[in-house]
Amino acid sequence: MRIGVIGLGSIGLGIARSALSAGDEVVGADLSQAQRNAFAALGGEATGDAPEAARGADCVFCVVINAAQTEAVLFGKGGVAETMPEDSVFVSCATLPPETAERLGARLTGLGRLYLDAPTSGGPDKALAGEITIMGSGAAAAFDKAQPALDAVAAKIYRLGDAPGAGSAMKAVNQLLAGVHIAVACEAVAFGARLGLEPSQVYEVITGAAGNSWMFENRVPHILDGDYAPKSAVGILTKDLGIVLDAARTRHFPVPMASMALQMFEMTAAAGMAQDDDASVARLYALIAGLSLPEAGD
Amino acid sequence: MRIGVIGLGSIGLGIARSALSAGDEVVGADLSQAQRNAFAALGGEATGDAPEAARGADCVFCVVINAAQTEAVLFGKGGVAETMPEDSVFVSCATLPPETAERLGARLTGLGRLYLDAPTSGGPDKALAGEITIMGSGAAAAFDKAQPALDAVAAKIYRLGDAPGAGSAMKAVNQLLAGVHIAVACEAVAFGARLGLEPSQVYEVITGAAGNSWMFENRVPHILDGDYAPKSAVGILTKDLGIVLDAARTRHFPVPMASMALQMFEMTAAAGMAQDDDASVARLYALIAGLSLPEAGD
Repeated sequence: MRIGVIGLGSIGLGIARSALSAGDEVVGADLSQAQRNAFAALGGEATGDAPEAARGADCVFCVVINAAQTEAVLFGKGGVAETMPEDSVFVSCATLPPETAERLGARLTGLGRLYLDAPTSGGPDKALAGEITIMGSGAAAAFDKAQPALDAVAAKIYRLGDAPGAGSAMKAVNQLLAGVHIAVACEAVAFGARLGLEPSQVYEVITGAAGNSWMFENRVPHILDGDYAPKSAVGILTKDLGIVLDAARTRHFPVPMASMALQMFEMTAAAGMAQDDDASVARLYALIAGLSLPEAGD
Repeated sequence: MRIGVIGLGSIGLGIARSALSAGDEVVGADLSQAQRNAFAALGGEATGDAPEAARGADCVFCVVINAAQTEAVLFGKGGVAETMPEDSVFVSCATLPPETAERLGARLTGLGRLYLDAPTSGGPDKALAGEITIMGSGAAAAFDKAQPALDAVAAKIYRLGDAPGAGSAMKAVNQLLAGVHIAVACEAVAFGARLGLEPSQVYEVITGAAGNSWMFENRVPHILDGDYAPKSAVGILTKDLGIVLDAARTRHFPVPMASMALQMFEMTAAAGMAQDDDASVARLYALIAGLSLPEAGD
């Protein structure tokens, strides 16, 4: 089938490559020449023009940063809503507020196109391997149309409901947990250091104990290596936890744990580390308390 | 070898049984007749008198609730410090402030006995199977003396330093993470319910995604079953997070994530659930926000 991928960042590039590997005809779009070159180097066709990538596609993955970009891709001047064929399916992968997913879905459906609310989990490596998880919701017709493309790029595809919104709600729950787990992993390693424990020792013991989390296991090695080059940046979590807090406040629902985690990421961003790896929260604790953490090359 | 086990609660009973299964001669002590009967039913010798269990032992496991009980067992009127043989080893398994472990260790060592700071992780099932994790620190002589007994009851034994305190420090780090992970697991399931997601669906998706933690996987089933009979009670975490907060405050070290988690457990205790399972934090969110969570028998 013919697939358009809008946004060739780390996840989008992985999705585009997985679809290509599955034998699909793939056109990728990105404003960055470097990202287009990266996809071209994998044998893909790349363009700087999103509507062009959607023209004639059966399925359009939209893997941009946020709600504003997703809306601009769909309905901005010359948006893909005008160039995607009727009955083709738009697969929205960015983390959006559930209400935004509902609204964009209703508007696109009104134009005779299908919409799938389909945020992802798994990160760049899983995306390249065609093994991301998709938290999907939408009409059965949208799932059916997208199924071969989803099978090409994902290891797990959840059908969480028959309307857009549920997929984004599940992603918000996941990001709430992910954000808190990263913040507390950093707090725990820094606290351990203050108590005289070696961070590497803390990592070894905790990953085999009840205090472990997927994020602890994944992010603490960045602290051990003193490597804060952004695999996923602080700014992603201020954005995603912001969505969580907005969704909670709209409903008058208290989320004190997520709220505290957001403050830790905001403090880290305020200290100049917004573009650095999200494990930089550990460096915030170190900065505040005058701790020494491992440095690159140690 | 001859082993005394002071405290036949869920972890102590498991340790006593594991040592018995390994062929050791084991005397268990507990103030509760029911716990003594439980150990006797497993073929063990039980007494209500802790000093009696320590008399003639090579190794004495102390598996009581907290620092006050540990100190009373050791140095209270007729404490085991007087009945344990010289050169025998006291293995302190309760979660203690690191400073307390240092102080008790120094005092017992001054009396010619060995002391191991040896808090555990793993819970009742692993204790019964002889597969707990021990976060140990103490003199080499104390480790050497205790080694056969430790091998009988634990799957993993960490040697974190040559003095009491490091084991308790690592346990504090683990409890910081465990407490935050339980509180946020409850927050996430309740938030998901507020967004219209089924708790069972949240469990299925999150356990396969980056938001997972050991505690999420272990505790959320209690919420799904509506079963708040205490496998581990809210009161254990108010105690353990209290130790974390005290240790942090003593050192002027900020632990905002742990602090917020403690408040959630205190709120849950204040709402009358101190003796219930620690997943009861989910019921606190439900109570506050008027949510329906699964009930037993659903």
